[in-house]
Amino acid sequence: MVSAQSLARPGHGGNLSWAASIAGCSVSDVLDFSASINPWGPPQSALEAIQTHLGDLKAYPDPQYRVLREALSQIHSPLEPDWILPGNGAAELLTWAGWDLAQHQATYLPTPAFGDYRRSLSAFQASVIEWPLSEREGQWLLTAPGLDKRGGLLINNPHNPTGRLFERDVLIPFLEQFDLVVVDEAFMDFLPPQDQQSLVDLVPEYKNLVILRSLTKFYSIPGLRLGYAIAHPSRLHRWQRWRDPWPVNVLAAAVGAAVLGDRAFQQHTWDWLIKARSQLLTGLAELPGLRPYPGAANFLLVYCSQPVPQLQLSLLQRHRILIRDCLSFAELGQHYFRVAIRTEAENQRLLTALTDILSPV
Amino acid sequence: MVSAQSLARPGHGGNLSWAASIAGCSVSDVLDFSASINPWGPPQSALEAIQTHLGDLKAYPDPQYRVLREALSQIHSPLEPDWILPGNGAAELLTWAGWDLAQHQATYLPTPAFGDYRRSLSAFQASVIEWPLSEREGQWLLTAPGLDKRGGLLINNPHNPTGRLFERDVLIPFLEQFDLVVVDEAFMDFLPPQDQQSLVDLVPEYKNLVILRSLTKFYSIPGLRLGYAIAHPSRLHRWQRWRDPWPVNVLAAAVGAAVLGDRAFQQHTWDWLIKARSQLLTGLAELPGLRPYPGAANFLLVYCSQPVPQLQLSLLQRHRILIRDCLSFAELGQHYFRVAIRTEAENQRLLTALTDILSPV
Repeated sequence: MVSAQSLARPGHGGNLSWAASIAGCSVSDVLDFSASINPWGPPQSALEAIQTHLGDLKAYPDPQYRVLREALSQIHSPLEPDWILPGNGAAELLTWAGWDLAQHQATYLPTPAFGDYRRSLSAFQASVIEWPLSEREGQWLLTAPGLDKRGGLLINNPHNPTGRLFERDVLIPFLEQFDLVVVDEAFMDFLPPQDQQSLVDLVPEYKNLVILRSLTKFYSIPGLRLGYAIAHPSRLHRWQRWRDPWPVNVLAAAVGAAVLGDRAFQQHTWDWLIKARSQLLTGLAELPGLRPYPGAANFLLVYCSQPVPQLQLSLLQRHRILIRDCLSFAELGQHYFRVAIRTEAENQRLLTALTDILSPV
Repeated sequence: MVSAQSLARPGHGGNLSWAASIAGCSVSDVLDFSASINPWGPPQSALEAIQTHLGDLKAYPDPQYRVLREALSQIHSPLEPDWILPGNGAAELLTWAGWDLAQHQATYLPTPAFGDYRRSLSAFQASVIEWPLSEREGQWLLTAPGLDKRGGLLINNPHNPTGRLFERDVLIPFLEQFDLVVVDEAFMDFLPPQDQQSLVDLVPEYKNLVILRSLTKFYSIPGLRLGYAIAHPSRLHRWQRWRDPWPVNVLAAAVGAAVLGDRAFQQHTWDWLIKARSQLLTGLAELPGLRPYPGAANFLLVYCSQPVPQLQLSLLQRHRILIRDCLSFAELGQHYFRVAIRTEAENQRLLTALTDILSPV
């Protein structure tokens, strides 16, 4: 039975106050597997940057964000700073990508799709054509579109919520086919550099390619807001003329410049994720009624034979654990949930709780 | 002679790196009269809120910003929280006001106008009709428009850069006349409550009225970004559906909730401003070639018989003082500058420096 409380379930992930009210505890006592945030951050380098730059609050941010852009251009060498535009989270840049997409006759949207894509597309009345991923033998596939497809394409890689990593070879033909391709690589930095399938290096070659990146998930600063876009300078200049002059606050800009050079934190995250994700995948696969999909990011999508809303409530009420239901992904419905990869001990707590609820008495 | 360096003068105020390069000193050694920021902040309550909420960086902001909206609704009692929408600075909300204005055939813009108004209007191809203020006997007047004027109106009160405070009785007829009236009250909080000419209380009565407010100027947190809009809930819901879900970072939201209750800081600012502004006005009026306009905000517009670009360079080179030229206000040209009101000692430094440059040998 789904309780009345669950009817007020928020449409987006990560609403901890709702979860705490169900769990009957404080927000800080909820173990949150719903938001896909690196459990090891924010790194010390981020917190130090904040303390160092508190004196900067009295001045407006540099509208060109030169220091941050220089740091970003170094990690994307040989890209020059004017090919990179910082934003108030990738979500702010998605707004302007949505405006650009709305100028085309239609935008193809692989589904299930991250909910904020529809927000940015409908804000400017973009026409959307859904392009469902097909599931075959436990893999989510994007079958090649017919040659008649034109207009815009908005896709993320790795894909959220399936965790699927599309190989470059799958995406590159789209650059010739579509008039505008926006690739949201919000979770790409969770892959070690040699495993990434980023299209960043193709931006100088394809004026119709826009890459969105987030710094909030890997560095655990979603509350501070920080992302960036990589695209042709003429497009980014246009976005700058539309949006307000100071979208990124000075603390976020300072943190960004600091953490990009934090190699120790990056390596620690990559090492942890490979091991912890593999363990959690195995653990979930062993539970009755669950079928997790292998994923390249810091979360896993799981098929669940019983309705997820009830499982979600039980996990909250009995174990103070919040998982992400997939009700907001219409294509998935109530038999899927998504969990973030957390520390090995926390993942074990999730597995134990799931065992408690799912195992036959 | 205007040096080659001045050709690279930035179009907006407050670019301290440019100023420091002219002055031949570090950014922190420039005495900045160009940005109109309260010299007494940020208040201790703001810095404490930041330290208290550093742990919140790991979680997404509450998309409803309930705590902040509750605090804002208390200072605007009896307005309920859903009549108030926080933004990433007033500038972010101006973007969405620009979108709404662009839906009307034309928007009337009293000039000279704050530069960011044109940005927000041109982003969405709004048609703009300039409505020049007329200067008479040292006062800037907005002569009543003919009854044929319809469409949008975007105005600020107190007016930037003239400092003119429009009385409610001047503005109220516009609410009947125009289809949409956006009043930017970014500097209204610098007036003690009994002197304010805010239209906030009229929002429930006029669905076509939008008020923009800033918290960055009074509380000296332009680097952190925080503003809010007051309008009918249906309009604010629409803006929320368009923009990204988390435009205000958690530290800004926490600071906002904290400083709104900081009565001591507010009273100190009001007391200082009345005295310091009056002294600076008198001091400027006594200097040869200068004619300051009385202003209601924390800045003064000054007519200067000699070209301001040269005066600006001399002040930087000889005194490390930055004033705001008005070249970006086409209607004003090179014979006007704007100065922020700073502490009495700093204002005296400005007067001494101006005396040094302007007085005949």
